[in-house]
Amino acid sequence: MTSQPLHLLSDSLTAFLGPYLPPSPPSDRVFVTLTYAASLDSRIALGRGLRTQLSGPESKCMTHYLRAHHDAILVGVNTVLADNPGLNCRYRVAGKSPSEASPRPIIIDPTFRCKLSAGSKVMLAASSKEGKEPWILVSAEWHAAVSPSDLAHIQSIESTGARVIPVKGLQSDNRNESWAAILKLLKERSIRSLMVEGGAQVINDLLLAAVQDGDGTKVSPVDVIIITIAPVYLGKNGVEVSPASALDYLYDIKWEPFGRDVVMASFNRKARAVS
Amino acid sequence: MTSQPLHLLSDSLTAFLGPYLPPSPPSDRVFVTLTYAASLDSRIALGRGLRTQLSGPESKCMTHYLRAHHDAILVGVNTVLADNPGLNCRYRVAGKSPSEASPRPIIIDPTFRCKLSAGSKVMLAASSKEGKEPWILVSAEWHAAVSPSDLAHIQSIESTGARVIPVKGLQSDNRNESWAAILKLLKERSIRSLMVEGGAQVINDLLLAAVQDGDGTKVSPVDVIIITIAPVYLGKNGVEVSPASALDYLYDIKWEPFGRDVVMASFNRKARAVS
Repeated sequence: MTSQPLHLLSDSLTAFLGPYLPPSPPSDRVFVTLTYAASLDSRIALGRGLRTQLSGPESKCMTHYLRAHHDAILVGVNTVLADNPGLNCRYRVAGKSPSEASPRPIIIDPTFRCKLSAGSKVMLAASSKEGKEPWILVSAEWHAAVSPSDLAHIQSIESTGARVIPVKGLQSDNRNESWAAILKLLKERSIRSLMVEGGAQVINDLLLAAVQDGDGTKVSPVDVIIITIAPVYLGKNGVEVSPASALDYLYDIKWEPFGRDVVMASFNRKARAVS
Repeated sequence: MTSQPLHLLSDSLTAFLGPYLPPSPPSDRVFVTLTYAASLDSRIALGRGLRTQLSGPESKCMTHYLRAHHDAILVGVNTVLADNPGLNCRYRVAGKSPSEASPRPIIIDPTFRCKLSAGSKVMLAASSKEGKEPWILVSAEWHAAVSPSDLAHIQSIESTGARVIPVKGLQSDNRNESWAAILKLLKERSIRSLMVEGGAQVINDLLLAAVQDGDGTKVSPVDVIIITIAPVYLGKNGVEVSPASALDYLYDIKWEPFGRDVVMASFNRKARAVS
């Protein structure tokens, strides 16, 4: 696993992102940052299963800078299958090893389709001490009926320090129940900041999710949205970010040109107040 | 027809847009600027036929500033039916009357569905000397078989100075032929700069269109693309801008934050060189 050096993020972008980073010290709940890179036509890939390089090296640097500021990073299983991502942090943080600086990879994978092996990038990053071992969230229903071959696969993955965690309520057809269960689990395991990177299904679901706040209010789990837009069109057959219904909940919106791209950062009016 | 006053465009945005304006003096061909406002998920309206206010007052001011710099402004008939747009220029230009400062409205309407009357905003703008009379481009095939009632409608519209112009090759199923015919007609009528504002079907077609340059090379008719992006999601059922296939032909891309929105301006690598 080679670790390409990453340039330092520019002072202007560091200052730009500052207000949108998770609070320090962390609050009592999970602070969620949703971040992705899309084309002008809001596509994140040319097609299902096609890894598409959209944004430039500066944006990649920003992604790793953000990863350094979150306890965990979450993706859906389709992203793992399509991109074989490392999900580690290559942005160097003073006083921290690459593994310490890296977020915990969380993979939403209700029916354990991810097929991780020792050669998967996320596993390689962990075994070479350049990242943390992933947690794979499967549905409790699937786990209760696990086959012997899947069980052997789980044991082989877990022998490296990765975890396959059954989650009650993790089901793709009820986004609110799923996200409540995910956030509860992460909080119990001392994750206080989560960066959600994709893919499209996870993003579209999360944009519309509503969970119960401490006092019972229905709120969005998303605190901050950071989007990179690249000046290309990926076209109608691309994988698109567009929620099932309209949303106008962003505020304190800032835009920063960034190479060929632009970065938008914003807060979510429907999120819980940071306590 | 009341003419709301428009604030002057800020110096920074005037400077930002300067390099992307049509050349002066004009070149021998039609310089085409494609411009639209979209949501983060590249929707221009909440649904078909629903007028949706996306961008702020600053963006409206920019639109009218751009209209002042183009000989003509083109929209598809669906935009006329959905929005009842005035298509005039409310940005005041020293030494020009509002009508002189306004671009010529061009409506692509192959089968004459636009139902314009004296009360339509584009007709009111012209009759009150705040804009120019529209040209409605119909297909030659439709025009050859025009019904008596449509002919009466045409005559009533034309009595105001508007024109219904049959165009050979104007057919929605061959974008290259259509755009070649439109640009030829406009050039013959001394239009040297065209601003295309929508709707989605016109934009998606135009993004992919290829026409023959003077020397026979296939080129894009679009010289400049200017997009305003508003920080909202209109959702999956919205009317979307996304061409049928991928495009990566933008260059000299600049982004300018603008109120809550951002504006992108760029040239098209596949356009003809400005002669």
